[in-house]
Amino acid sequence: MNVYLDNSATTRPFETVVEAMNKSMLEGFYNPSALYAPAMYAERGMADARKVIAATLKANEKNVIFTSGGTESDNLAIWGWLQTQRVPGEVLYTAAEHAAVKNACLEAERRFGCKAREIPLLSNGSIDLAALEKMLNEHTQLICVMQVCNETGVIMPIKEVCALRDKLAPKAAIHVDGVQGYLRVPFSFQQYKVQSYALSAHKIHGPKGVGALVIRDGHRIKPQMAGGGQQNDLRSGTENTCGIAGLMEAIRQYPADGVSRMLAMKQLLAAMLAEKLPEMQIVGLPVDDAMSAGHILNVAFPPVRAETLLHALEMDNICVGTGSACSSKKGKHSTVLTAMGCSFQVMEGAIRISLSPCNTEEEMRYTAEKMIEKVGMLRKFTRR
Amino acid sequence: MNVYLDNSATTRPFETVVEAMNKSMLEGFYNPSALYAPAMYAERGMADARKVIAATLKANEKNVIFTSGGTESDNLAIWGWLQTQRVPGEVLYTAAEHAAVKNACLEAERRFGCKAREIPLLSNGSIDLAALEKMLNEHTQLICVMQVCNETGVIMPIKEVCALRDKLAPKAAIHVDGVQGYLRVPFSFQQYKVQSYALSAHKIHGPKGVGALVIRDGHRIKPQMAGGGQQNDLRSGTENTCGIAGLMEAIRQYPADGVSRMLAMKQLLAAMLAEKLPEMQIVGLPVDDAMSAGHILNVAFPPVRAETLLHALEMDNICVGTGSACSSKKGKHSTVLTAMGCSFQVMEGAIRISLSPCNTEEEMRYTAEKMIEKVGMLRKFTRR
Repeated sequence: MNVYLDNSATTRPFETVVEAMNKSMLEGFYNPSALYAPAMYAERGMADARKVIAATLKANEKNVIFTSGGTESDNLAIWGWLQTQRVPGEVLYTAAEHAAVKNACLEAERRFGCKAREIPLLSNGSIDLAALEKMLNEHTQLICVMQVCNETGVIMPIKEVCALRDKLAPKAAIHVDGVQGYLRVPFSFQQYKVQSYALSAHKIHGPKGVGALVIRDGHRIKPQMAGGGQQNDLRSGTENTCGIAGLMEAIRQYPADGVSRMLAMKQLLAAMLAEKLPEMQIVGLPVDDAMSAGHILNVAFPPVRAETLLHALEMDNICVGTGSACSSKKGKHSTVLTAMGCSFQVMEGAIRISLSPCNTEEEMRYTAEKMIEKVGMLRKFTRR
Repeated sequence: MNVYLDNSATTRPFETVVEAMNKSMLEGFYNPSALYAPAMYAERGMADARKVIAATLKANEKNVIFTSGGTESDNLAIWGWLQTQRVPGEVLYTAAEHAAVKNACLEAERRFGCKAREIPLLSNGSIDLAALEKMLNEHTQLICVMQVCNETGVIMPIKEVCALRDKLAPKAAIHVDGVQGYLRVPFSFQQYKVQSYALSAHKIHGPKGVGALVIRDGHRIKPQMAGGGQQNDLRSGTENTCGIAGLMEAIRQYPADGVSRMLAMKQLLAAMLAEKLPEMQIVGLPVDDAMSAGHILNVAFPPVRAETLLHALEMDNICVGTGSACSSKKGKHSTVLTAMGCSFQVMEGAIRISLSPCNTEEEMRYTAEKMIEKVGMLRKFTRR
């Protein structure tokens, strides 16, 4: 059995996504900026995709900007907004943010003279709202808070962040990196008064190389690419119509019951592991906490090292992650786990199991069995 | 018969490109930053693509940076280089440059305090080298010169630009936008001492949403996206492995005799048109000029208007372009043709016929027949 449990790193595109992309490439390949009729069908395909995305977020379809993925979407939201400000101010980001957000905030210091400040985390992986309250003031221009932490699966308290912003820094925008939450944790622009939301196709069984930034009506940003003025001058470059067709199909195919099924599978897996491996430590919130996303389980089995366990599981054809795939090759400790104050052994041992609606209960049972076997074996050979 | 003659706007991906992308998506979808073995195959696929691209340009494979397309590649080359300069200087770009280059240079004025200056064109569409010679000085930091003009098909005198740079501004970098020339007009880093070269997959029967910037050994640029530090920190964001697989396959499949076949087809078409339509005006260099690219023919039949002719040809299932597709919907006169000093009637009437190796001689004959018929009909109804 092959079990892929690194769906927060990337997912396998749905077969219908591949079909939709093939159709777009072979039949609808025209440049949407051209003047003849077939090009207008290409343009219409993008309009359909905007509608589909807007509907999932209760946003205005006019405010959907297609990008090359999550990183570009986050960069565009952050720099695009800060460039509209007359004087440099303060930019806040949570210590759990993905590098695409954190490094964009740090770059804003160099580019625009802003001051970037990190919002600390609690030991459970959520943000320290009391600390945030003290950080907000009339100079705050932007607050970046991710929807779901890619490493721990903790759902961030966006409602509370909005309330604090409204009270203490009403002119500040809130940008939500939704790359790890889109379709997997409910979110809408009606529910949360945020200004922008970034999403990526390849985390929801769409293709790599495409994503979107969705902005609230009336929110203004400056483009970050210079060129032909596509997408209402907000994102130059020939639109990736084929990738956009794949993104649209992934959204359409994403199962409505996926969220509840992933949560049930995660809880089952965690329960099976906890029963046989009492040393298991969950990094982040308990699996039955309402703010723990159903698709990510971050666990450590001290003193077993994550990389060792990852490769042991690979022998059983099980793929799991260690921290964020984007930085996993650098071999450094996770900055998120460091900010949570995790022990050295937990940081060395944390593996991330991330689900998709395509996973099955049978896979959970197989994974639990193999993990119990491998952890049992490895702890015998690991120095305490 | 369906005849697609707008290949400089975009091309239909080769069937084998689609197959390669399907394989990448369904079998090789793993995140190349992950630690397990299948992810390493994804990484290896990218390494192969770098080798293939580097070989076509006689560049070092380490200097191939994958991007979301031509616009991003141009922006990265321009801003990435200017950010390495200690003091703001002068940036030169030809009046024929694509908006992705021209607007990036203008944006550099705002962002970095550079002075952007336009190199004028001759009436034949090439650049005014005498004017360039006067513009170069010790403040020149960058010269942007496209390989082939997307509107006229004129091949720019890159060798002469390099020579002038070496003599008058030896510290200045030269960036070549190769989007309209890559694989269709010979180019290599050995042949030309330029510092960077941008290319796009969807102009050579690859997919949209992917391209590359290739830089000369020792040339240093700063990244323009902030994030996970992929691609040696030069371009953050999960790599579009599927698009990259498509780009590699397009390069492999691009026929070696494509260049000579396109030139022959273009000359045949131009000869057939000239015979029956003596009012035809070629915009740019004569079709037998060595600096006229084999795949682009820009012609006007005054007083027939381009848009009218385009739609008339569409009735015969022939797709042609008017100027650059990227700006064709804006309904403004081409800035390139304006810079060449074209007459009002030529600017109103210029259509761009752009070929690919997939076009056939039979299509040329059909197109000539229909164009002669439509132009003959339309000029009766057009006020002079």
